[in-house]
Amino acid sequence: MIKVGIIGGTGYTGVILAGIILRHPEAKLAWVTSESHKTEKLSEVYPHLSAITDLVCDEPDLEKLAAGTDVVFSALPNGMAMKFAGNILAAKAKFIDLSADFRFKKAEVFKEWYKMEHSDPSLLAKAVYGLPELENVKGAEIVANPGCYATASILGLYPLVKEGLIETDSIIVDAKSGVSGAGKTLTDETHFSNCNEGISAYKVATHRHTPEIEQKMGEGIKITFTPHLIPMTRGILSTIYGKAIKQIDEQKLIKIYKDIYKGKQFIRVLENILPSTKYVYGTNYCDIAVKYDKRTNKIIVLSAIDNLMKGASSQAVQNMNIICGLKESSGIEHIPVYP
Amino acid sequence: MIKVGIIGGTGYTGVILAGIILRHPEAKLAWVTSESHKTEKLSEVYPHLSAITDLVCDEPDLEKLAAGTDVVFSALPNGMAMKFAGNILAAKAKFIDLSADFRFKKAEVFKEWYKMEHSDPSLLAKAVYGLPELENVKGAEIVANPGCYATASILGLYPLVKEGLIETDSIIVDAKSGVSGAGKTLTDETHFSNCNEGISAYKVATHRHTPEIEQKMGEGIKITFTPHLIPMTRGILSTIYGKAIKQIDEQKLIKIYKDIYKGKQFIRVLENILPSTKYVYGTNYCDIAVKYDKRTNKIIVLSAIDNLMKGASSQAVQNMNIICGLKESSGIEHIPVYP
Amino acid sequence: MIKVGIIGGTGYTGVILAGIILRHPEAKLAWVTSESHKTEKLSEVYPHLSAITDLVCDEPDLEKLAAGTDVVFSALPNGMAMKFAGNILAAKAKFIDLSADFRFKKAEVFKEWYKMEHSDPSLLAKAVYGLPELENVKGAEIVANPGCYATASILGLYPLVKEGLIETDSIIVDAKSGVSGAGKTLTDETHFSNCNEGISAYKVATHRHTPEIEQKMGEGIKITFTPHLIPMTRGILSTIYGKAIKQIDEQKLIKIYKDIYKGKQFIRVLENILPSTKYVYGTNYCDIAVKYDKRTNKIIVLSAIDNLMKGASSQAVQNMNIICGLKESSGIEHIPVYP
Amino acid sequence: MIKVGIIGGTGYTGVILAGIILRHPEAKLAWVTSESHKTEKLSEVYPHLSAITDLVCDEPDLEKLAAGTDVVFSALPNGMAMKFAGNILAAKAKFIDLSADFRFKKAEVFKEWYKMEHSDPSLLAKAVYGLPELENVKGAEIVANPGCYATASILGLYPLVKEGLIETDSIIVDAKSGVSGAGKTLTDETHFSNCNEGISAYKVATHRHTPEIEQKMGEGIKITFTPHLIPMTRGILSTIYGKAIKQIDEQKLIKIYKDIYKGKQFIRVLENILPSTKYVYGTNYCDIAVKYDKRTNKIIVLSAIDNLMKGASSQAVQNMNIICGLKESSGIEHIPVYP
Repeated sequence: MIKVGIIGGTGYTGVILAGIILRHPEAKLAWVTSESHKTEKLSEVYPHLSAITDLVCDEPDLEKLAAGTDVVFSALPNGMAMKFAGNILAAKAKFIDLSADFRFKKAEVFKEWYKMEHSDPSLLAKAVYGLPELENVKGAEIVANPGCYATASILGLYPLVKEGLIETDSIIVDAKSGVSGAGKTLTDETHFSNCNEGISAYKVATHRHTPEIEQKMGEGIKITFTPHLIPMTRGILSTIYGKAIKQIDEQKLIKIYKDIYKGKQFIRVLENILPSTKYVYGTNYCDIAVKYDKRTNKIIVLSAIDNLMKGASSQAVQNMNIICGLKESSGIEHIPVYP
Repeated sequence: MIKVGIIGGTGYTGVILAGIILRHPEAKLAWVTSESHKTEKLSEVYPHLSAITDLVCDEPDLEKLAAGTDVVFSALPNGMAMKFAGNILAAKAKFIDLSADFRFKKAEVFKEWYKMEHSDPSLLAKAVYGLPELENVKGAEIVANPGCYATASILGLYPLVKEGLIETDSIIVDAKSGVSGAGKTLTDETHFSNCNEGISAYKVATHRHTPEIEQKMGEGIKITFTPHLIPMTRGILSTIYGKAIKQIDEQKLIKIYKDIYKGKQFIRVLENILPSTKYVYGTNYCDIAVKYDKRTNKIIVLSAIDNLMKGASSQAVQNMNIICGLKESSGIEHIPVYP
Repeated sequence: MIKVGIIGGTGYTGVILAGIILRHPEAKLAWVTSESHKTEKLSEVYPHLSAITDLVCDEPDLEKLAAGTDVVFSALPNGMAMKFAGNILAAKAKFIDLSADFRFKKAEVFKEWYKMEHSDPSLLAKAVYGLPELENVKGAEIVANPGCYATASILGLYPLVKEGLIETDSIIVDAKSGVSGAGKTLTDETHFSNCNEGISAYKVATHRHTPEIEQKMGEGIKITFTPHLIPMTRGILSTIYGKAIKQIDEQKLIKIYKDIYKGKQFIRVLENILPSTKYVYGTNYCDIAVKYDKRTNKIIVLSAIDNLMKGASSQAVQNMNIICGLKESSGIEHIPVYP
Repeated sequence: MIKVGIIGGTGYTGVILAGIILRHPEAKLAWVTSESHKTEKLSEVYPHLSAITDLVCDEPDLEKLAAGTDVVFSALPNGMAMKFAGNILAAKAKFIDLSADFRFKKAEVFKEWYKMEHSDPSLLAKAVYGLPELENVKGAEIVANPGCYATASILGLYPLVKEGLIETDSIIVDAKSGVSGAGKTLTDETHFSNCNEGISAYKVATHRHTPEIEQKMGEGIKITFTPHLIPMTRGILSTIYGKAIKQIDEQKLIKIYKDIYKGKQFIRVLENILPSTKYVYGTNYCDIAVKYDKRTNKIIVLSAIDNLMKGASSQAVQNMNIICGLKESSGIEHIPVYP
């Protein structure tokens, strides 16, 4: 059994991660830390875990905790993991970070978008971007778990760019997210009465997941990214647009996607139907469809995930499975919660 | 008092229209027809109208009904109004049609997208597209009330095209609609358990509101249009993208919009905040914001309406007010229902 | 024109009140105060009011403001209005308070449930409980606008008690409210991701609207009251149970309700259908149905309101209309927002 | 491996059952029948199962199918299973029926509430009511899986009746259900725009789950049962009221519940917090809290389940586990989907 610890276990992604590990056939949840709930039972903070675990949130003394732990996850806000990642590696644990701290190859990109200096840029070279369908995660000491929007958008967009099918200055990603993407911190925007029965865009052209998507697409490629808040709890749908280099047959497009994601069990390239975030609810799946608008010569890709699962916690476990040599799908073969 | 009749008063747009007329200070609801509910009280079909009206749905004998009526609205499905519009004009009533039958100047565009022959193309010349902020509706005998997506999208997009600010082959409209846009007909897609807590696109590159938007933009302009279904009852947000012809200052863009919509009381060009469909809930407002992504040289416009009001029934009343010489805002000065 | 001021205009009930007054044909909104948003435009705090009002929130110098104002509303939290109500009366304005400060005839009941001493108990005698269908509001100097749950529950329950139809120790009120009832203050319970797609009870047997209902039912009557939070923005449905004194015919029950509410235009006693909060959305209506379960000899009453309208702001305006001698329905004849 | 077949696999409970069996460590889904989708892939009818199963819906030739199957589930509407249950037993398979056909010990109760004659009343004696926390299911040939409301209500109410704590003519069950309880059949009541943002009661004093609850409470006990439709997909909360025989301490009540449900892993008796349907989302848990209102001498019980899981499909699997001698929780240890 893999021995697992979670730093910051009382945010949404932290507690979902805890839930997955608690049911994982080959891993054991050894400890969870929480600054705001230390010494409380996790099931008191999150009553849905009543009768499932008696784990008490620890103080965050990471060095002590990391010793004897195989894998440490951090589900803390941006800017914190970079301060202690070195210590975790020193304690011989592998580290999977759900924040943005290790997502960028270049420290200056991190600084530009996150408005802070990276405190340990030497570690960036040890980090692998944890999108296992497109990256070689095996062997990584640090896994930088991708952002939720970035996961849906990269998986949907990458085949078009890789195969040179679209003009790279024409890329638009119009993304829609459920409210849980904003986390558990109380804000006016996520107050039920303010966001229910309404839709709006936010952070137009300035959202921090933009450079993650661009990094994967390649040097010099810039995308227009617009996130929207949708009155539902979970789910991201990215609608991706690119101008085709030349006219193309839709069936051929589908085949390209099927070939690229062949053998990737969590990517479902759909035909005849379009993705709905409902079809992936509570799972690690990413559903993708690709359409061609011949009237305008645009390619349109639709990519759907559960932002808290493939967009965060279950993808983190997928990465854990890979770096620990377990079956890639171990513990994350959930059936979508439908309806 | 203007004497008003409604053909097809028991669909969503019909009954909302009835409600507006019932409170209109200068109009009186004389009759409502309904094929499926004839001889029933409107308030039995729609209990929210209990104690508000005792009107009984009539059989649809339009000639008889139109005689003595000043304005006849039709809220029937596409393909029906064209059959009797001539009779209404003959009865000396003005006609406002909420279907697509009179929206296109060219009968062949109608045929191409609606897959039926227009039965009375000679009337098309008498019809004015009822988007009163951009069209001269006064004096029209037939008003073709715009589609809901078309209303939000044209109002948001038109200034960019008119002022020549964007490359016209780069236009993408990514639109999101509440479920009421699909009407009251029962379908799997609008069954609560199937669409709640989920988002998906539909009719990608094939939605019939596309040619309405294109017609207004001008000969030869084609747009990519993607509608999405959002788990909320009312509201449309159109997110519109275009590649700027040249770099432009965002403040200048805002000024262009403000100038074009100067004096148009139902268009609110927002600054500092972004539109939310919640801000226009239950009203005739269209809220617009315009942003410039200088990293990618794209202009992004956000346009929000209530699909059943500005996107249908209150806009129809706005058109009635204009063609009848009433104050344009008469009876439709609702305060948005917030929260 | 009645000159109106609102103290605490930036809470939900305050801003809705402002909206109603802004469209009231016989009243003018002279000023709005806000502690937290002084000197800001109301339309900046609530963008849905853009282009509707340019009013700037005043500092709360009430004496100055009240002078020359006909009616002052307070939409502040409990415990504040009692401190300045005397000053408002001294300034010759009428006072309508949306908090609990003046709802109880006995200061000790207020103290028991609200855990604070009433600072001006002599004014309680001048206050009338503002449920105009059951109280004589005309002539009141202070109107204590009822609580939202109390409004729905009293209107549904009172006929049974008045007519002596039920055993008064058997009364159970199971009430369900939309989330807006909790106001705009951010809490874990009203955070979208925490309350969407879930239902729970809260404050079982301890909710403060209980004594309001009991006060109206009469000395010594105690009720069991259980509020629930429902994942929707607006609406309260009270399901009321009482053991019948003797077997009774359902049609007779309906007649009793119709008789008691005869001429009360905002009470709609429904037959054949059951109330839905959707039928009263955005209005001052209270819809009531009464059923008899002969298997168990229980009477069941269902009573639905919009918690922010009949449960707060539009009822406050109804009270204003009455005490100012206007038509009772002036400015509050909204058509329900359906669907 | 247990070999499992599902009759009627394309309703909500059928497909959820299929999903659970597809991931069950000790069972194998051998076949699924569907009248309306025969020869279609299950994953075409329900795209969330794409890449999870290639099973094709069979024609319903039950005798053929039942032969060689260990357990047959029926998720058909009421009135169908009674016609073929005998054949299934004859084929030596065990039968778990999710309809009402075998829930009543007396055929006349079935007839009274379901308005049809039972076609095979001799089998009723072989059927066990499948509420395993309160019934001895082991050894049953036919398991009558309980109704969703009945499950939540019986589990919440039974301890009060069993221990003689309440007056049995005072019982009121006010139940609230998500919309999925109405199934996948399209109706006006479950059309998104009609039921979103609204709450209403239905089938007041006439709902068919009433006699199920009464049967368990004992001869002569009648309850008042009021179901409500809540704008959410999943979840039932039953709020149960009874007049206490004598004053009682709340802590003592809690202890009684804890004792009765000791060792029942899927019943969680909560202290300090109240049940929310969100805490049991997607699981087989039933969360219960009990409160005492000493002002009125009423006991109030709150009981929450996921209507499609403990209220239907996962409880059916729990029953399968028991009658097949597997671990009771096998395959149904899901972590609640929160948030």
